[in-house]
Amino acid sequence: MKDEEWKELEELMEKHHVDEGVRKYIRECVKFHTFPAAGLLLGVFMVDLALEKLGAKPGDKLYAVSESPKCLPDAAQVILHTTYGNHRLRVINTGRFSVTLNRFAQGNSAPGVRVFVDVDKVKAYPTLYAWYTNDPNYKGGVDGGDLLDDIMTAGRRVLSFEHVNVRFEPKEKWTSVKCPSCGEMVPGNTLSKGVCRACGNMAYYDRAG
Amino acid sequence: MKDEEWKELEELMEKHHVDEGVRKYIRECVKFHTFPAAGLLLGVFMVDLALEKLGAKPGDKLYAVSESPKCLPDAAQVILHTTYGNHRLRVINTGRFSVTLNRFAQGNSAPGVRVFVDVDKVKAYPTLYAWYTNDPNYKGGVDGGDLLDDIMTAGRRVLSFEHVNVRFEPKEKWTSVKCPSCGEMVPGNTLSKGVCRACGNMAYYDRAG
Repeated sequence: MKDEEWKELEELMEKHHVDEGVRKYIRECVKFHTFPAAGLLLGVFMVDLALEKLGAKPGDKLYAVSESPKCLPDAAQVILHTTYGNHRLRVINTGRFSVTLNRFAQGNSAPGVRVFVDVDKVKAYPTLYAWYTNDPNYKGGVDGGDLLDDIMTAGRRVLSFEHVNVRFEPKEKWTSVKCPSCGEMVPGNTLSKGVCRACGNMAYYDRAG
Repeated sequence: MKDEEWKELEELMEKHHVDEGVRKYIRECVKFHTFPAAGLLLGVFMVDLALEKLGAKPGDKLYAVSESPKCLPDAAQVILHTTYGNHRLRVINTGRFSVTLNRFAQGNSAPGVRVFVDVDKVKAYPTLYAWYTNDPNYKGGVDGGDLLDDIMTAGRRVLSFEHVNVRFEPKEKWTSVKCPSCGEMVPGNTLSKGVCRACGNMAYYDRAG
């Protein structure tokens, strides 16, 4: 982002007297995400609330589920270090804008807190409501000034939470095999019709040049 | 990580004369990921090579595909800001340890570079080979000293690359509907049997208390 855009973001947070801890989260998340997307900022308030209700803090060994692949995973990744690559973040794309946190636990489940956007509460913020409900008449994009203003005004007021028991599955054992088509190593249990997924139905590129 | 662990990592990079640019990537990635996992460090060398072959640098508007959900996505996220939440990273779990980069492009495909671990080259590094092929006799974990030593010795010597055309699909339009079961908003096209996926086959928690 340009200096001018960072300045606007700081002014917006100052105008809405955003908590200093949340400002720090927002700065880090925006840097990672590369711009102040509505879902990311909302995600910061969600993660902050979930931490509070779980009685946890960044640095604790936490696990997160993001129920949306849009923006929200980045708030969890940056603030909590529950990253996609370290397996402490699961993206379970239910389509709901919701994040669930739990602490490290043995066994197959753990007590956690689920925070979600409560659509009835969102109605008090017209631009946020239009964006959130994907109103076809809404044309402000994902980082328009009115939208971000609504999010900063609303903060956690548009959120609800519940206590849950999060379920998870044990790691599967696997063996490594060479795909006879491409010659690369893959887990044996991912072969289908004798070839790896990249040579099968997950192909996403063509060879060039 | 503890100070002592950071010191060990610095000593390891110094011992192997790791390029200063790569050291910076490694520090940032390890901080995000919370520990120096083998797949993460290998991922740094992979992303670095892909950048070079694409003639790109961090800060350019890039898109990445990680063919593995393990560690590798974090190297792309941290170095390139192709994040899960900003949709510039796709995880296409083919099971291969491979990353593909391309620049922003109009249309449905773009020229890119795919970097992958070349198993024949890995054979020269016994501990790395044992870890990479998931040898049941390998007991060194994902951040054992011998393993990290092999990775720093090997660097990009265990990698190969190819030029590809990356395919992608246009965004789908969607409308927002309220799930009649949980009352939360979801994209209409994700309902199944009249309820959202969270109330259906993606349920991952039980209500508590």
